[in-house]
Amino acid sequence: MNAQSRPASPPAGTRERLLRTAFQLFHEQGFHATGVATILREAGVNPGSLYYFFESKDALLLGVLDFALDYLDPAVMAPVEAATADPIGRVFELLAGYRRRMEAERCRMGCPIGNMALEVSDGNAKARKLIHANFENWARRVAGWLATEKRLPADLDRMRLARFVLTVMEGGLMQSRAAGNLGPFDESVAVLRHHFDLLTSTPGAARRKQAARPRKARRPRSSTSA
Amino acid sequence: MNAQSRPASPPAGTRERLLRTAFQLFHEQGFHATGVATILREAGVNPGSLYYFFESKDALLLGVLDFALDYLDPAVMAPVEAATADPIGRVFELLAGYRRRMEAERCRMGCPIGNMALEVSDGNAKARKLIHANFENWARRVAGWLATEKRLPADLDRMRLARFVLTVMEGGLMQSRAAGNLGPFDESVAVLRHHFDLLTSTPGAARRKQAARPRKARRPRSSTSA
Repeated sequence: MNAQSRPASPPAGTRERLLRTAFQLFHEQGFHATGVATILREAGVNPGSLYYFFESKDALLLGVLDFALDYLDPAVMAPVEAATADPIGRVFELLAGYRRRMEAERCRMGCPIGNMALEVSDGNAKARKLIHANFENWARRVAGWLATEKRLPADLDRMRLARFVLTVMEGGLMQSRAAGNLGPFDESVAVLRHHFDLLTSTPGAARRKQAARPRKARRPRSSTSA
Repeated sequence: MNAQSRPASPPAGTRERLLRTAFQLFHEQGFHATGVATILREAGVNPGSLYYFFESKDALLLGVLDFALDYLDPAVMAPVEAATADPIGRVFELLAGYRRRMEAERCRMGCPIGNMALEVSDGNAKARKLIHANFENWARRVAGWLATEKRLPADLDRMRLARFVLTVMEGGLMQSRAAGNLGPFDESVAVLRHHFDLLTSTPGAARRKQAARPRKARRPRSSTSA
């Protein structure tokens, strides 16, 4: 394509405004229930500008899922990290953030990525892969916090536990949306808290695991090692 | 309405065929993405018969959610109960059943009720209440199994734990649909298994709880009580 045949560029910021508007509308209404006309009206963008950036609604969906990868940090994770340096504290502050958003939305909408996982994964492999990347992005961040948490058994798989935190968040939000109240979400978080309490307080848990896997010494043993 | 103005009854079995077909199609494609014409074609039913029973697609959705309440037992719970009498064994057999169905569907479709919880709860209060009833129906059955499980602490809330099992099932299925493989579901179930292991094996867990709540004696104390 040469410079002549390419349409004039839309004004600066148009692409991001389209992505933010579509992200919000897909979250509020779902992907299939959101019409392109509504996106254009709410973004204040004409069809030519939309199709300059995205050749179809499916392409816009991929753009939104890609946008969400970068949106996670400022919107969700950075505030949690600013609130506390305690690794387990961050896990529950993260969940408290989802609770606050659910409360503000009167138990509607839930998690934008979780909704798309169930609505579009089966019919759109590219979208499915980007949804998976968003979940892994989330879990890696949580696993990063837990990596330095010495109260957990040394050989406990942090990424597995982080994905479990995501499982509990998503499953809890789902039941709360159906219930129309925060009860099921709160109960799920309480059981997860109990699980962390058991992980960090079971007498000898870390020691037993070390004894069972003596092949790796991650650091010089202190005098209190088993 | 008198007998004259009422249209002739559709053949016996039509209503159930409509419900089963719609249930299957909503599961495969989602509620919004399923057209009434497809339901009629796949059920082999004419529009008059559909509207004899259901005045709208929304009314059919409520019928499907009501149908699902009774469908849970023969389709899901009775086979689990036939497989094992062990309460905790039943929990993991139940999860294994969802795993087998996900495997057969190549990690598509997931849980029919979970999908509807995210797709239709916000816009349809009657459907939302029936979805909630389905979740509670599921959890009550699981709580019933766990009620007799003496390896769990006596005062551990069985319904809360049962709802947590549902949380783990739904959150695990969601991540596996996005991943396109059973890995995240298996990991979530493994962490849940670990949680049950910690609940049943933490030394003195039941005793400590009993000591903290001495006001109720559920049965005559044996000589081994604390």
